[in-house]
Amino acid sequence: MSQFNTTNDTICALSTANGIGAIGLIRISGNEALSIVSKIASKNLVGKPTHTAHFAVLKNPKGGIIDEVLITIFSEGKSFTGEEIAEIGCHGSPFIQQQIIQLLLNNGCRIATPGEFTMRAFMNGKMDLSQAEAVADLIASQSRNAHNIAMKQMRGGFSNELKDIREKLVNFASLIELELDFGEEDVEFADRTQLNRMVNDVMAYLKRLIKSFELGNAIKNGVPVAIIGAPNTGKSTLLNTLLGEDRAIVSNIEGTTRDVIEETLNINGILFRLIDTAGIREGAETIEAMGIERSLEKIKSAQIVLIMSDYSEEGSKAEGHASMDTQTAAEWVNELQIQYPDKKFVLVGNKADLRTTSISTSTSTFIPISAKKGEGIEELKSWMETQVLGNYDLANETIVSNVRHYDALTKTEEALRKAKEGSEQGVTSDFIAMDIRQAMYHLGSITGDISSDELLGNIFSKFCIGK
Amino acid sequence: MSQFNTTNDTICALSTANGIGAIGLIRISGNEALSIVSKIASKNLVGKPTHTAHFAVLKNPKGGIIDEVLITIFSEGKSFTGEEIAEIGCHGSPFIQQQIIQLLLNNGCRIATPGEFTMRAFMNGKMDLSQAEAVADLIASQSRNAHNIAMKQMRGGFSNELKDIREKLVNFASLIELELDFGEEDVEFADRTQLNRMVNDVMAYLKRLIKSFELGNAIKNGVPVAIIGAPNTGKSTLLNTLLGEDRAIVSNIEGTTRDVIEETLNINGILFRLIDTAGIREGAETIEAMGIERSLEKIKSAQIVLIMSDYSEEGSKAEGHASMDTQTAAEWVNELQIQYPDKKFVLVGNKADLRTTSISTSTSTFIPISAKKGEGIEELKSWMETQVLGNYDLANETIVSNVRHYDALTKTEEALRKAKEGSEQGVTSDFIAMDIRQAMYHLGSITGDISSDELLGNIFSKFCIGK
Repeated sequence: MSQFNTTNDTICALSTANGIGAIGLIRISGNEALSIVSKIASKNLVGKPTHTAHFAVLKNPKGGIIDEVLITIFSEGKSFTGEEIAEIGCHGSPFIQQQIIQLLLNNGCRIATPGEFTMRAFMNGKMDLSQAEAVADLIASQSRNAHNIAMKQMRGGFSNELKDIREKLVNFASLIELELDFGEEDVEFADRTQLNRMVNDVMAYLKRLIKSFELGNAIKNGVPVAIIGAPNTGKSTLLNTLLGEDRAIVSNIEGTTRDVIEETLNINGILFRLIDTAGIREGAETIEAMGIERSLEKIKSAQIVLIMSDYSEEGSKAEGHASMDTQTAAEWVNELQIQYPDKKFVLVGNKADLRTTSISTSTSTFIPISAKKGEGIEELKSWMETQVLGNYDLANETIVSNVRHYDALTKTEEALRKAKEGSEQGVTSDFIAMDIRQAMYHLGSITGDISSDELLGNIFSKFCIGK
Repeated sequence: MSQFNTTNDTICALSTANGIGAIGLIRISGNEALSIVSKIASKNLVGKPTHTAHFAVLKNPKGGIIDEVLITIFSEGKSFTGEEIAEIGCHGSPFIQQQIIQLLLNNGCRIATPGEFTMRAFMNGKMDLSQAEAVADLIASQSRNAHNIAMKQMRGGFSNELKDIREKLVNFASLIELELDFGEEDVEFADRTQLNRMVNDVMAYLKRLIKSFELGNAIKNGVPVAIIGAPNTGKSTLLNTLLGEDRAIVSNIEGTTRDVIEETLNINGILFRLIDTAGIREGAETIEAMGIERSLEKIKSAQIVLIMSDYSEEGSKAEGHASMDTQTAAEWVNELQIQYPDKKFVLVGNKADLRTTSISTSTSTFIPISAKKGEGIEELKSWMETQVLGNYDLANETIVSNVRHYDALTKTEEALRKAKEGSEQGVTSDFIAMDIRQAMYHLGSITGDISSDELLGNIFSKFCIGK
């Protein structure tokens, strides 16, 4: 029997964040939820109407009161998991929470595994797999766009689109298989031209979804940005200007060592992770100090690279990497762009307020700014945003942000391509039908129509406990 | 108008702990709670029955869905605060919580000040002041006994005892004041002997309550313990043995500097804070290394002091502080006990397994142990527990753990003592009545029968937000 089908036992977990708060919430789900909670509470909750809250006292069998709590109950079929649920709202003390959970365990509950509540919701048909996965993404989302993508997915927007594709494939497959049934009569029910067009449409749609993963992944995990430049080109000033304007929504991700300190920048709901800014903050990190080698390391881990140069009249008189006047930097940017074609480079000409005459640069992406006076910053931000968004319409288009979905969509598209090629080359229907079935299999794995214990284990183990 | 009487506006706050969790809870209280929440939710909640939970979608007015939530509502008079309450259970993402709170603020809520929900409960007569204070203690409690004291206080056990005393004083006062009314007729209604006995009873009771604060404070904040000893007396081994047995309930309180690292030990529900154990952990801290001066500093901040000595045959041959054989240590303990009469010293004779003949020590509290073999550890723990508990019966006796209550009880007792002395010295009734009224005033301040804005501000500002 599958480990994921033994859902008739009753599970419990702390569902609110760890630490001290005013209120903590302990969730219990399963056949025995109400009867177990009734055993430890001063009130019998079995048979009470769904969606009602009840004040109760929880007593320690060894004597003493553990807490005064509020228990909200949900009947089978009317809860998040689809099972009987009781939610105990207690005082937000880790000590009390621990005592209550211990009491529940002593009375027949077991501790929920990570994501087990959501997995049960999936098992009981309350949501499909991609919706379940969106729950975790939703909780982890840190920016408006990441939140929007997860919310759309959780509410079934993505699933509905997949359902449309699936229906088309089912139609296709049934026609092909009809041919197979009448194979001996050499009938060709399916109009191959029409079918090919349909496959083409589906494939074009899949390709756009697959390509959207780059954006979806960037939005979900934040876009790594490197700022590279010689001393005195104003990296530290630019960093402060960029962060300063967004101070309210900027947070420091403090690592264990100075080296991994990152700052984040939220531009129109897209999160940019400014990598390795420790040195910049202290004004110590320079191309000279860190060496070209380490600059290249930093570039490798970035998706967007800001090359800082000195665009002032004074700066243009200097030469070489160590001083980095704009024209020297432009040459370097061109070299880098050839070396790293997938990354987006921009040449930033700082101290533009100290230049009266413009000079030509040999690079296409050049943005003059004055970090000190805040000039050109909006252009720079807008450029960064455009690099991430491409031509996607975030508000209305479905964006894939889950690597598992990306893999499955890629495999679906591959199978369809094989079916299409087969059809074009006059391959017999049974081979084409096999490829279509393969495509449907991969598509179905996204929503969980097809799933395995291993897959489920992988997905839900990444959830937090209590969800 | 008092800042604490303007309770007709509607407040909101995140009530669960900060950070990512499965579920977050945002609480809204006030006249407009349901109407404001109905404005931002997909469902009208005004007029719905109390203690019911409702699924709803929260929409961003700028477009997009913020979250799918569960809103539990409580009618005026039937909630924690006594006001209309809505509790929004949302996904436990800080981003979502921030969005929802922003939306509430835009629709007429304001952010609750720390403890404001509980303060409103007090203002609306749902609990008295000492019960309200117990809510904060309950949330902060880290050990069974701290939890029990706070729970008893929150449930009104302490308040009821104070009410009894108050009633006795009211009786007393009314008899005395009856005398005053008939003053010219020189009537002495109140039987002074009987009254004196009653005052004596009340004072004895107050004295015991006042004295219990030492225990209550120790239980609430943890008892600071110092382990002092020369190198090789086995401090580090003892520390590990003490902590090792309690590993499951031991936590490290990591400070910003090594110097303040503390470990805690839970003995029968009493928390002991082992102060300044950083050096001990690393085996580096010795009387020699830290110097007698610093040893004394450490002793000063402790309530219980374990002086480690070498009780082995070998150890007894050494002499002086640096080696610290048991007999040398015993002399030191005696000196210390005279110098610090309020602290509890114990002479620990370690390596007792390496001694075959017993020797006499000049100190009364001597516990031979073998930290390595775990011998004598239970005796040591039991001694530590006894030093804290004294002759109090934690299960059945009221223990004062709040310094404000301690102050008020002390002042009540002082006023009563003056009344008693006056009565004994034949002072006229009006002076005695004044002292009794003073006593009642101080007693009433505990439960908040008498309170001021400043007092309330002081008390509730120490609460966490959302409670």
